[in-house]
Parts: sequence; structure tokens; C-alpha cells
Amino acid sequence: MILVRQEVGDVLRDLRQQKGRTLRQVASRASVALGYLSEVERGQKEASSEIIASVAEALDVPISTIMHEAAERISVLEGLQTFPDVVPDELVASVEPELSLR
Amino acid sequence: MILVRQEVGDVLRDLRQQKGRTLRQVASRASVALGYLSEVERGQKEASSEIIASVAEALDVPISTIMHEAAERISVLEGLQTFPDVVPDELVASVEPELSLR
Repeated sequence: MILVRQEVGDVLRDLRQQKGRTLRQVASRASVALGYLSEVERGQKEASSEIIASVAEALDVPISTIMHEAAERISVLEGLQTFPDVVPDELVASVEPELSLR
Repeated sequence: MILVRQEVGDVLRDLRQQKGRTLRQVASRASVALGYLSEVERGQKEASSEIIASVAEALDVPISTIMHEAAERISVLEGLQTFPDVVPDELVASVEPELSLR
């Protein structure tokens, strides 16, 4: 089953790392517990809408960017489910390096 | 504050109505309590990733479609926050009829 929280978590982590920020910095700026943010990034906890808004602001990224990026990744995963043989390998690799572990 | 659950709820309701299905039909097919789905559609409850997956399947819509559509609506709302004077009225009206009540 494709889980939105897994993709949203991946996107939040990727955006944070692209901006060179630590979990601690973002958690502090978003007023979110560090352990909670870490669980959200790993797709282990659902982020409430308020948390997503706070983290987006802490990352200086629009909420719509997070949602669009998560939608794109989910779209590729759904393509994989429906047409497992026609999605090019390089597209799969670019979306989710640890896909095979799921 | 822009809340993802509000936009996701609106999208779920719009998709359901476009397909001419009742709350009861979708709730039953998704194995979700009717009252809960109703609250999700009204943006009063966060839908878990599992619920979103079930409701998407019950609506015969990819999860990515729901996420893309919600992202689009959030993008317009964020444009309104940032540039309140440059977003055309007709665009605002098409996104969210009850925007002025928030």
C-alpha cells in the first residue's frame, strides 16, 4: 500500500538536506519535538496539517511544493504498481533509492 | 494558516460528487465509518495515510491525483497570501467558494 506519510516524510527530509539544515534546527524553528520530526521524516508518524505548515515555514518552502513533490513520487510508485515493466529503471532509482527494501 | 486536511477533504468531496457517489457508498466501499469520512471531507479530521489509500481506491482515483489536486489548490491559496492583489477573482472563486468565511 502506498502511504502518503512515507512520501511526505521523504520530501521533508530531502528538502531539509538540500538546504543544509539539521533536524535540530528545523525542529526548533518549527517548534516541533526533534524526535517527532525525525519520525515524520522516516514516515513513521502522520504529520498533522498544523505540523506540515510549521515545518514548511521553518524550511522556507511553500506547503504546495511539499505536496506537489510528494504527489510526483506517489505518481511514479502508482505507475510501478500498474505497469511494473514499463517504468524506466532510472526513473525508479531517482525517486526512491531504498524502494526495494519496502 | 493553510491546512492540508481542508484541501484534501474538499478534493475528496469534489471527486466523490463528480462520480455521483454518496458518502454512504464510498464509506462502505472504503470500510470507513460514514461519520468519519464526512468529517474528513469537511476538513475536521486528519485522514491517515491508510484512510486516504482506501478512499482513493473506493473512488477509483489514484492517490497522486488527490495529492496533485490538493497541491494545486494550496498553491492558489499561497499565492493569495503572498500576492493578495494579483490573483484574478475568477481563479479564487473557482478554488474555494467559501474562502471569505475563513
